[in-house]
Amino acid sequence: MTTLVFGHKSPDTDSTGSPIIWAWYLNEVKGGDAEAVLLGEPNTEAAFMLDKWTLPKPRIIDAVEAGQPVVIVDTNNPAELPAAINDADITAIIDHHKLVGGLETKGPIDIRIEPVACTATIMYKMIGKDMAQAPAWVKGTMLSCILSDTLEFRSPTTTQEDRAIAEALAQELDVAIPAYAAEMFAAKSDVSAFSDAELLRMDSKEYEVGGKKFRVSVLETTSPETVLSRKDSLMATMPAVAEEDGVDQVLLFIVDILNEESTMLLPNDLTRQVAEKSFATVCGDGDTVVLPGVVSRKKQIIPNLAV
Amino acid sequence: MTTLVFGHKSPDTDSTGSPIIWAWYLNEVKGGDAEAVLLGEPNTEAAFMLDKWTLPKPRIIDAVEAGQPVVIVDTNNPAELPAAINDADITAIIDHHKLVGGLETKGPIDIRIEPVACTATIMYKMIGKDMAQAPAWVKGTMLSCILSDTLEFRSPTTTQEDRAIAEALAQELDVAIPAYAAEMFAAKSDVSAFSDAELLRMDSKEYEVGGKKFRVSVLETTSPETVLSRKDSLMATMPAVAEEDGVDQVLLFIVDILNEESTMLLPNDLTRQVAEKSFATVCGDGDTVVLPGVVSRKKQIIPNLAV
Repeated sequence: MTTLVFGHKSPDTDSTGSPIIWAWYLNEVKGGDAEAVLLGEPNTEAAFMLDKWTLPKPRIIDAVEAGQPVVIVDTNNPAELPAAINDADITAIIDHHKLVGGLETKGPIDIRIEPVACTATIMYKMIGKDMAQAPAWVKGTMLSCILSDTLEFRSPTTTQEDRAIAEALAQELDVAIPAYAAEMFAAKSDVSAFSDAELLRMDSKEYEVGGKKFRVSVLETTSPETVLSRKDSLMATMPAVAEEDGVDQVLLFIVDILNEESTMLLPNDLTRQVAEKSFATVCGDGDTVVLPGVVSRKKQIIPNLAV
Repeated sequence: MTTLVFGHKSPDTDSTGSPIIWAWYLNEVKGGDAEAVLLGEPNTEAAFMLDKWTLPKPRIIDAVEAGQPVVIVDTNNPAELPAAINDADITAIIDHHKLVGGLETKGPIDIRIEPVACTATIMYKMIGKDMAQAPAWVKGTMLSCILSDTLEFRSPTTTQEDRAIAEALAQELDVAIPAYAAEMFAAKSDVSAFSDAELLRMDSKEYEVGGKKFRVSVLETTSPETVLSRKDSLMATMPAVAEEDGVDQVLLFIVDILNEESTMLLPNDLTRQVAEKSFATVCGDGDTVVLPGVVSRKKQIIPNLAV
């Protein structure tokens, strides 16, 4: 049976690209039978990557059958995967997130999790000398994933390995990183096609702290003013999204990639309290607060979150 | 703070040796500060290994403090680890068992799980070219772990990698594998110092199937007759052990390493039923049944267990 390779729901560039890389490796190097699939529509940056490297958009699935062989990449969180994931035949997990517990396998399998910025970085190392066989579109996909997850090396999640591998790939591909990253981030910043509710859920993780459940959403953009021009309707939409998703509050951080800061929306006293307790800042009378240097949910937002 | 490296409770050779290997690597190659410790008394084979390679017996601990940096090897099962393991600072996991879920980490860490027979096999690969610096006692510990977990390559868990690495190590150490493995298995077979209850719990995992909880115990030995001479008192001790440990039944498999078969004890109708349903065998009137070819709990007993 064909092995399905997929990342998390609401696929970003890494969760779109890593399955493509790994399916190539399984098929062309290991002589297997694998297919990259998606658990939802890729975001605009991921769609740009597919277009740039002339890749067909992977098939979108919303469930997996019991016994279906799967490789899970870029997550180990059952909440970000199809409901019956533990009934599938999970054959490998490749990820760079904290272990959350909840995934179970029927026998010992290959699991590789490393504290680097990007799944593609781990895959590059795992593929090793077989990278010599990789076509340009595999290398281009890897480069896109690393530039996306590191915000062109600006994110504090960036390791020497992520950077060195991206630079080696760019050189082989004769791609100028600053220009290519700017194209990617411009694509990610084009959010005109999305509703407010879609923006609030686009890059979002649930997190519980101090007895409160939050949907912690980030929007990485080179054009924060575009998102901020919609802040009133975004804030007006938060209560309905929170209720529908069973959380107490949506927290939205608009990450200004180029200036390396975030703007957090403050629709009410709870968000104001979270901002002050979590980021040692003082909120004025306005409905936003700027958090200098904050660009990473994983390293800077979630670990500091307090109520 | 010193990083503690440990395997599972009731340490066998791999759970005693792998922490020693990894602490050496962290200290001598990575320039860190690590200590191998044990979560209980090593079994007789592990004690033989320590003696053979002139290794001091690691300190035995029964708890870890919150925030204590730890590396977990040879298990990912919270039930086999100290109670408050998720409050420790888990910095890495190296294992070869199925993912059971339950361990959680505060951030992304290094996790390496592979479907090979032995943790030491994975470590050999991870240490890579730095193996050139390894002293004989590190190589001897690795060899011991692999021969133990593979039952000298007899177990169906054995992979080409386990075998090739063990053979390379034996050659470098000028150790004859058959003679050395025979010494190890003789040490493991000396169970005279243990009570019946200790034998029933020595190498045991809990497993639930068909609404029944079992303690699935194996005793790997080159001298099955020694254990079988105690079968009446072992069977008489099963109900008390089962009650104390909160399971319905202890299943004991006496694994004859050299003849590659197991003898299962049949104290009652339930065990008789389990034997017949799980292993397509017919139990006679006796209180034991021989299961030809069955030597691995992981590959042959647990996956087939039925009521």
